[in-house]
Amino acid sequence: MSDSPTRIGLLGYGTVGSAVDRLLTARQADVARVVGAPVEVRRALVRDVNAQRDSAPRPGLLTSNFSDIRDDPSIAVVAEVMGGVEPTRGWILELFAAGKSVVTANKQLLARHGAELFAAAEKHGVQLRFEASVCAAIPVVKVLRESMIASEVNAVLGIVNGTTNFMLTKMAEGADYATVLAEAQRLGYAEADPTEDVTGSDAAAKVAILASIAFHTRVTIDDVPHQGIDTLDSVDVTFAKDLGYSIKLIGQARRVEAGVVVGVAPTLVPHEHPLSGVNGSFNAVMLRGDAIREITLIGPGAGGDETASAVIGDLMGVLGTSNSGFLRADSFFRDLPLVPADAVESALYLRFDVRDEPGVLATLATILAEEQVSIDSVVQRAADGRAQLVIVTHPAPEGASRRAISRIADLAVCDGPPVLLRVLAAR
Amino acid sequence: MSDSPTRIGLLGYGTVGSAVDRLLTARQADVARVVGAPVEVRRALVRDVNAQRDSAPRPGLLTSNFSDIRDDPSIAVVAEVMGGVEPTRGWILELFAAGKSVVTANKQLLARHGAELFAAAEKHGVQLRFEASVCAAIPVVKVLRESMIASEVNAVLGIVNGTTNFMLTKMAEGADYATVLAEAQRLGYAEADPTEDVTGSDAAAKVAILASIAFHTRVTIDDVPHQGIDTLDSVDVTFAKDLGYSIKLIGQARRVEAGVVVGVAPTLVPHEHPLSGVNGSFNAVMLRGDAIREITLIGPGAGGDETASAVIGDLMGVLGTSNSGFLRADSFFRDLPLVPADAVESALYLRFDVRDEPGVLATLATILAEEQVSIDSVVQRAADGRAQLVIVTHPAPEGASRRAISRIADLAVCDGPPVLLRVLAAR
Repeated sequence: MSDSPTRIGLLGYGTVGSAVDRLLTARQADVARVVGAPVEVRRALVRDVNAQRDSAPRPGLLTSNFSDIRDDPSIAVVAEVMGGVEPTRGWILELFAAGKSVVTANKQLLARHGAELFAAAEKHGVQLRFEASVCAAIPVVKVLRESMIASEVNAVLGIVNGTTNFMLTKMAEGADYATVLAEAQRLGYAEADPTEDVTGSDAAAKVAILASIAFHTRVTIDDVPHQGIDTLDSVDVTFAKDLGYSIKLIGQARRVEAGVVVGVAPTLVPHEHPLSGVNGSFNAVMLRGDAIREITLIGPGAGGDETASAVIGDLMGVLGTSNSGFLRADSFFRDLPLVPADAVESALYLRFDVRDEPGVLATLATILAEEQVSIDSVVQRAADGRAQLVIVTHPAPEGASRRAISRIADLAVCDGPPVLLRVLAAR
Repeated sequence: MSDSPTRIGLLGYGTVGSAVDRLLTARQADVARVVGAPVEVRRALVRDVNAQRDSAPRPGLLTSNFSDIRDDPSIAVVAEVMGGVEPTRGWILELFAAGKSVVTANKQLLARHGAELFAAAEKHGVQLRFEASVCAAIPVVKVLRESMIASEVNAVLGIVNGTTNFMLTKMAEGADYATVLAEAQRLGYAEADPTEDVTGSDAAAKVAILASIAFHTRVTIDDVPHQGIDTLDSVDVTFAKDLGYSIKLIGQARRVEAGVVVGVAPTLVPHEHPLSGVNGSFNAVMLRGDAIREITLIGPGAGGDETASAVIGDLMGVLGTSNSGFLRADSFFRDLPLVPADAVESALYLRFDVRDEPGVLATLATILAEEQVSIDSVVQRAADGRAQLVIVTHPAPEGASRRAISRIADLAVCDGPPVLLRVLAAR
């Protein structure tokens, strides 16, 4: 074992950055044994060196000058834990040019500028690792990149946003959307501005990253259609429960013959499905492939120490594989087309608001049959001359389902288009 | 990328060995991009080169001469997929001495001779990797060794035997032990001689390996007390279900102040626990630690392609980290004492066979109270003047519980010692 320490730099010294420093210090002896030399944080970049901090960093650690890290030849690898798209993007490119590998927790940056960053890392012969950018300490990036090399992965699906999973768990217990959002904010799960979480945009960034590495093709956040839980009516959570489903915000990336299907949407998950029981703020990602069948990883998808743990795992990975050519940064060697979800078969949950009179169900069922869409289950609840009619279909081409829906919505007995959610297959 | 192929050797060309060859060939282009050079199987050692095989290996691949692999300088790494303890152990030592790294799927060998093998790998500066030895393609070894470097793991627990999990799933549906064993054998889940599975010995080998890498200390299969499902009465599966629990064969390794507690036993798992819903032949491993909180990995724990996928992941890992000093073979730098499970607190499930007469429950409850063991729930079923009295206790020192049990078993109303199973905490 070498005595001279391996030195790392940090961009950012907030919750995650200070946790990286603290955990590396606390586990110093073990880390040294695994890596073969002691590892220490040499410098951490912050906006204001003199700001008040809970973490009490040691003298000389903090700097507000980026070049102190970029130009320090003793720093081989840098963890970017400051977030934001600019100036972060530019600084990472400068670090690559200076021959330094980078570990990042920044999903928005990767989901927007991944192509440029990976190409730059490749060009300069350095590594870009990003475990912490998706589901914190759940090692889904490592498993996809390193354990699945010989197993064609054909689907990645999961619950990749803890805030909305917490909210949906509470809604399944009977609370309404506004109440659970307020509770999530009070508990610190949701930001004051919860837009990224509740609209599905946060999940879409993670799906873009997961799809890219699972299928070795480039998918950006703008490629991922997303629907959030902000438009979800709690009556549908109740209907779904009665029918044997949980509603989860599911992010999906599927490899189909024509290319890749990606998306984020509230989705009905059968109770016997492994994702159905993932409750509260936990995340879960399921990988399906030929040789592996189905592997599910479940854990906390956020948190300072959890994120720091993933960052440190990546730092150790970089230190352990430098100059080996393993896990080349730019592994996006395919260029698969994006296929819209409605080009493939889906089972659908449809809730129609109809006049409560004889023959309505028969009319709807006839139209569905004419469009070759078959029905899995039906629930109807009536009040005041109107009825809520819920139909779960068997998987069918979405084009056919949408034709049927449009015909039904035009009926005089029907109060406009239905609420439409996709239903996950049990397997 | 280099054009000259990286060559690997195989010890064994059965289900797993031929799947390694087939998957590497099928995914040739992708593997080459990840590793930086094409990878091919150069030679595979078999007992009889001319035996009939489904896999139709290409000419020149098979050899019955071990030295053809050991002495081939073009082979840098060898996958051992033949199983057995001897001559496997000796051959692996010879490969290390010849400067070759080894990937193995052999849990019995590791759980018995791990200390010798890891020390030899360390001495010769080569790697020994073993993902496939525990739960096939579920990447628990990689995650424990590479992702948890900065997170003190304090417990590993899980369902690590698919055969018995399949059987317990069927027993929960009402079938008896003999019937489900016959079904498991018919479906190929259980061997003709199912001893290793049903006695918990297979699970004990995996617990020994997991405990060793989680806590950086040496644990062998002989250190792991194990109780199987062969002694389990289906009446207890039913009682457990009524009380809100599944019975699972749980392997556990826990870090306590005094050292390490390990064991395998049928255990009551609350329905809300993530392991409770893992059914059929699937395996699941849960890692608990300070920074990661709780990460659960679920997937198929056996199968030829699944095991081959794990072997290939390790082969790529070796190729990617050679000469880097990362993941040194012998990382068992601690020497923690083994602590018996009854030295720590457990909640217990106790089923007493008692005379059905007034005051029996009061007597039992009084004895438990005198020994400071408090009761969580009670169920009683009577028939023919006898009663089955099931008591689930809150966590208590096992010494206290056992004193109470022994006093109760001595009562005239009680027909000997109770059935005793441990109960997992919900969190």
